Amino acid sequence: MFRPEIKVIDCTIRDGGLANDSKFELDMVRNVYRAICAAGVDYVELGYRNSKEMFPPSEYGLWRFCDEDVLQKVVEGIDPGGTKITVMQDAHKAKAEDVLERDQSVVDMIRVATYVKDVDKAIALAQNATQKGYDCTINIMAISHESSPFLDEALQQIEEETEAKAVYVVDSFGALYSEKVHFLVAKYQQYIKTKEIGVHFHNNQQLAFANTIEGIIKGANYLDGTLFGLGRGAGNCPLELLLAFLKNPKFDVLPVLKVIGESIIPLRQEIEWGYTIPYMLTGVLDQHPLAAMKWLGTDKRDDYLAFYREITEAMGVAD
Amino acid sequence: MFRPEIKVIDCTIRDGGLANDSKFELDMVRNVYRAICAAGVDYVELGYRNSKEMFPPSEYGLWRFCDEDVLQKVVEGIDPGGTKITVMQDAHKAKAEDVLERDQSVVDMIRVATYVKDVDKAIALAQNATQKGYDCTINIMAISHESSPFLDEALQQIEEETEAKAVYVVDSFGALYSEKVHFLVAKYQQYIKTKEIGVHFHNNQQLAFANTIEGIIKGANYLDGTLFGLGRGAGNCPLELLLAFLKNPKFDVLPVLKVIGESIIPLRQEIEWGYTIPYMLTGVLDQHPLAAMKWLGTDKRDDYLAFYREITEAMGVAD
Repeated sequence: MFRPEIKVIDCTIRDGGLANDSKFELDMVRNVYRAICAAGVDYVELGYRNSKEMFPPSEYGLWRFCDEDVLQKVVEGIDPGGTKITVMQDAHKAKAEDVLERDQSVVDMIRVATYVKDVDKAIALAQNATQKGYDCTINIMAISHESSPFLDEALQQIEEETEAKAVYVVDSFGALYSEKVHFLVAKYQQYIKTKEIGVHFHNNQQLAFANTIEGIIKGANYLDGTLFGLGRGAGNCPLELLLAFLKNPKFDVLPVLKVIGESIIPLRQEIEWGYTIPYMLTGVLDQHPLAAMKWLGTDKRDDYLAFYREITEAMGVAD
Repeated sequence: MFRPEIKVIDCTIRDGGLANDSKFELDMVRNVYRAICAAGVDYVELGYRNSKEMFPPSEYGLWRFCDEDVLQKVVEGIDPGGTKITVMQDAHKAKAEDVLERDQSVVDMIRVATYVKDVDKAIALAQNATQKGYDCTINIMAISHESSPFLDEALQQIEEETEAKAVYVVDSFGALYSEKVHFLVAKYQQYIKTKEIGVHFHNNQQLAFANTIEGIIKGANYLDGTLFGLGRGAGNCPLELLLAFLKNPKFDVLPVLKVIGESIIPLRQEIEWGYTIPYMLTGVLDQHPLAAMKWLGTDKRDDYLAFYREITEAMGVAD
């Protein structure tokens, strides 16, 4: 029943960090790490390894940088089982020299996030990771805004010039329907012959889990999820749903349920995530969720017609 | 781009009534009715026409019975546009004589909800509706628990013995994945040759909207949704997402967004609905959501392992 090639990546701390400037408590991160290891999930993403010049440490939490001494404190005394550690570098906001040699790090894999226009920077960071001994992936963000021929050229380049383990479809805006997921995975498959395809979806239209299933059906083998969907805006594919769907006996969903109740639900006092009408509108209109995040911070948050007018005026498509 | 045969049914008041014993204020119901009419949605379901012997009026609100004088107060002074009114009868909890002749009613369609075992009762109520001049549908509940040969026989009987406009796949437990939706719609199509197929999904696994899309792709033309997913337990396919997905220019999503902000979001103070881990578990385990509803009313509501143990013990499948 199960496909052994599938790798599941929990990116709760990394993606959730976009909702709170990566300011999670160390204990909370350790709880997440412990649960993901106990659940037998393949990878846990503990944050970004981004540039301190671009993200002042006075404004951002530890998980925007994932310094090695910080990561040591996360893993100390916890049995990793088969779970490996990954961190993300943004192609346009990270430096190669911030990545140490593999034998000086607890990190196993570097995931490079990029727009198509920055693909050369992404390839350089991927090559840097490979040369230093890491596995790596390249995650193409805002895929709903990318199209031929530049996307095709980027995929060809990634295939030829990197040793990435996987190349991702990242639906940053939660704009994709299943037919577009099928189309994009098939397009990737035209160019990506020596690597896996990954999928990372957002929940603006309550389709993050469903689109992940559609990706699996079409052959994607690297799958992202987060605990209870924690993440920026409408959030992500819920890891618990993904593990329950996959039939691989190596996964145990119970530690995941436990940590959700103990460490994720309490965060709802501080962080808002999940489906709301402003996020639905940015998804349907294929826009960045930032406008919706701002709107939800105002006292007009439930005046959805006013938000619709604002966003369509900004797009130049208002009636 | 759009399929003109598609009919959309808003069942906010009917399905939402399962979460509050149908105790909505008249003004709220009028707001919903006004918005659904303004949005050009094909049908609005204002509640049940169930038996007062089985549901004591002292314990249930007006929308469990939808008396004609009550429905008159809903529609008074509101332009229906092209929107028609439906009410639901439960095959095992409703009486034929509670349905007046069509010319004495504001109702256009009777939807009969049934389990496969009660299909003869459902057919009798459907025939009663047809004889009195109404359109009708038959909605087969708990479909994830139904299987061959009894489901097949029920479909054959409905096809031959009724003039129902549509026969529904109702995933009462939110248990279906897309492949099972495809399978069930295809099975219905083997037997249902003179009627449409309808789909009604619950959101226990965040798949209600996604499964509705899958139903559409396979040919279902009667589609249920509710405002912001309001409904029992994890809730329903959100009507606003469905209208935004469908390309039919007769629909206007803006009145729907407005009434969600004004009349649905405030209900969250009194009614809890939407995705939570207990509902996820009843969905994954293909169980009625009632156990989860009860659990969420206790002070152990976020102890998900304890709920998992309780429900799997009740099923006889605990470790």
